[in-house]
Amino acid sequence: MINIQTLKGFRDFLPQEAKKREYVLNTLKKVFESYGFEPLETPSLEYEEVLTGKYGDEGEKLMYKFLDNGKRKVALRYDQTVPLARVVAQYQNEITFPFKRYQMQNVWRAENTQKGRYREFLQVDADIVGVYSPLADAEIISLAQDAVKNLGFKNVVLYINDRRVFSELQQEYITTLDKLEKVGRENVLKELTQKGLSEKDALDMLSKIETTELPDYLNELFKVLKKKNNESLEIKFKPTLARGLNYYTGAVFELSVAGLNLGSIGGGGRYDDLIGIFAGRDIPAVGFSFGFDRLMEAMEELDLFPKNLKTKDVFVAFSSSDLQEKALEITTRLRENKINAQYYLEDAPLEKQLKYADKKMLPYCVIVEEKNLVLKDMEKRTQENLSLEELIKRLK
Amino acid sequence: MINIQTLKGFRDFLPQEAKKREYVLNTLKKVFESYGFEPLETPSLEYEEVLTGKYGDEGEKLMYKFLDNGKRKVALRYDQTVPLARVVAQYQNEITFPFKRYQMQNVWRAENTQKGRYREFLQVDADIVGVYSPLADAEIISLAQDAVKNLGFKNVVLYINDRRVFSELQQEYITTLDKLEKVGRENVLKELTQKGLSEKDALDMLSKIETTELPDYLNELFKVLKKKNNESLEIKFKPTLARGLNYYTGAVFELSVAGLNLGSIGGGGRYDDLIGIFAGRDIPAVGFSFGFDRLMEAMEELDLFPKNLKTKDVFVAFSSSDLQEKALEITTRLRENKINAQYYLEDAPLEKQLKYADKKMLPYCVIVEEKNLVLKDMEKRTQENLSLEELIKRLK
Repeated sequence: MINIQTLKGFRDFLPQEAKKREYVLNTLKKVFESYGFEPLETPSLEYEEVLTGKYGDEGEKLMYKFLDNGKRKVALRYDQTVPLARVVAQYQNEITFPFKRYQMQNVWRAENTQKGRYREFLQVDADIVGVYSPLADAEIISLAQDAVKNLGFKNVVLYINDRRVFSELQQEYITTLDKLEKVGRENVLKELTQKGLSEKDALDMLSKIETTELPDYLNELFKVLKKKNNESLEIKFKPTLARGLNYYTGAVFELSVAGLNLGSIGGGGRYDDLIGIFAGRDIPAVGFSFGFDRLMEAMEELDLFPKNLKTKDVFVAFSSSDLQEKALEITTRLRENKINAQYYLEDAPLEKQLKYADKKMLPYCVIVEEKNLVLKDMEKRTQENLSLEELIKRLK
Repeated sequence: MINIQTLKGFRDFLPQEAKKREYVLNTLKKVFESYGFEPLETPSLEYEEVLTGKYGDEGEKLMYKFLDNGKRKVALRYDQTVPLARVVAQYQNEITFPFKRYQMQNVWRAENTQKGRYREFLQVDADIVGVYSPLADAEIISLAQDAVKNLGFKNVVLYINDRRVFSELQQEYITTLDKLEKVGRENVLKELTQKGLSEKDALDMLSKIETTELPDYLNELFKVLKKKNNESLEIKFKPTLARGLNYYTGAVFELSVAGLNLGSIGGGGRYDDLIGIFAGRDIPAVGFSFGFDRLMEAMEELDLFPKNLKTKDVFVAFSSSDLQEKALEITTRLRENKINAQYYLEDAPLEKQLKYADKKMLPYCVIVEEKNLVLKDMEKRTQENLSLEELIKRLK
């Protein structure tokens, strides 16, 4: 007998969990498609040089890199934005701009799993490529808003900033300022002095950022967003918001669920320079990425999953062994009539079959008897005798 | 500017292709669920020892293995059957048997790409775990049959054999016999003699296998299959069929499209010993795996994709710049009414906007004029003036 462990930070999703994931993905897909976004898939493995140098020091450290069998330096997808940039560059003559795509694939990061982080996780991204206008930022924000609304979230807060408010600051200070909400003023000031600022300079820097006035670009964006019915979304300007990734150049945003202590469920921003690295010409872009695990956690916590995710199959049981064949026939007839149906595949006493149906939480059982079909409603605990035709009619 | 190549054997799927893939996956999912199969996901990376020793020499050679950042020996998923076996063993006390799961994830094999093979490709599997009865084999075969029927295939052939017809033969001879259809009698006999048999022994071996009578287990299986309406499926006993993978123990099958020179579009069989390696006790299983790329090729060749996979969005155009804002409002109203809608996100002349809608093959355009909304049917080349209410009514 051999090892049957999964790797730290990697997960199996058994049916109950997998169905919930599918529900969320399908809901998001529908919203993305209602906005005219189209699906894209990119490979899990890329040449290492496609990915390196785009994510900052942390990215370099956490990336899964290795030599493949042909000694090529390869790396596993680290996010979906850099592969998108590569795709846009590679197919720029075939793509119609504005290019609006969504993507739902796994990414891999060798995170410290003690923080409740995973090493393989799903990202759900939507991006608009080829537009400088803040209308594109507004469209992305509306999309994110409608997405969470369709999942049942009621009170969400969108924090917005413009990365250019930091334009005079070094990256290391930006990283510290970004932590304001998480660690508080005192700790931010302390960290700034540890990074070499005097106490006065640290205080000045923080105050200056905190009192930044709404930049013009965001002002315009806010005007567009106001045109939309925004009852369920509160939008807040947050001048210390930076977002970790290095490639953002303009508006950045983060979505949180009010009242939940979960951190953000997604975020994004404008990155007008990234695609140019691959394409050799400037191609602007703005996008949003959902943290799928956070989204799932938040839905769980707020009990937003519909009750009917359980399977709706009809279970066809046989009351004695010689009727198993008839159970197969009935199952087949039900399926031909577009009714999801299953029967017990081994010879077994009726009791064992019903126990299985119960464990699987199947809502209806049909018991095949010598001369009757008995339909049992497993929840209401009622039953009645029916002909096959009546049964089909009833279950449809 | 840096490298913008994809790795050999790895693919991007641009929207048009990605939509087709999604259509096929959704169709298959519906069929799987109508039979009571539930989704399962496993990690892309496993401990190397979970995967090695299960796929024969070729598997060892083609597997993507590497050391992760923590110096653990890991390997990328090579198929979905071995991970399923690991899952069943790991959660055997939580799972209700019979366990019927489907799985649709990528696998990685460092194949020779010159043969038109890919190094990352999607597999679509359905398996029944915990049943010895041939009713489970029959259920899996019915499922595969209904799956391809729902995709529009009309003439499919299922080849069946029982692996036990080879029980007295060494693996190397089985591999040769399995090639009969592909390379012909002469070449099979030649290869058998190259592997050390005399000409007479080679001929005897081939003849003996070719004239094998239908084994009892298959006879029983055929009886069950006949109960189902099988017009579109021809079932053929093929005593030389072995299927490459080492873990099969009983019935093996392969699905082909009659008249297409594509090889099989899927196959599977019974593997009653594999799970025991992980579980420490015998747990029988039978399953089917679709070769997703072959399925896509076959659908392409037979023109089985529906025409309406194209986006059905309404495009809202503005006849002058000052009406762009109104276009945004109309788009929002349409979306609120569950009508997929998009508008052009940059200031642009009407002509440019309509060109975009045309390239995207959007079927309807609404042109926002000072006092009118003009609905254009892009295919029929008709147009009419409507109020917003009429427009919503019309498009719903």
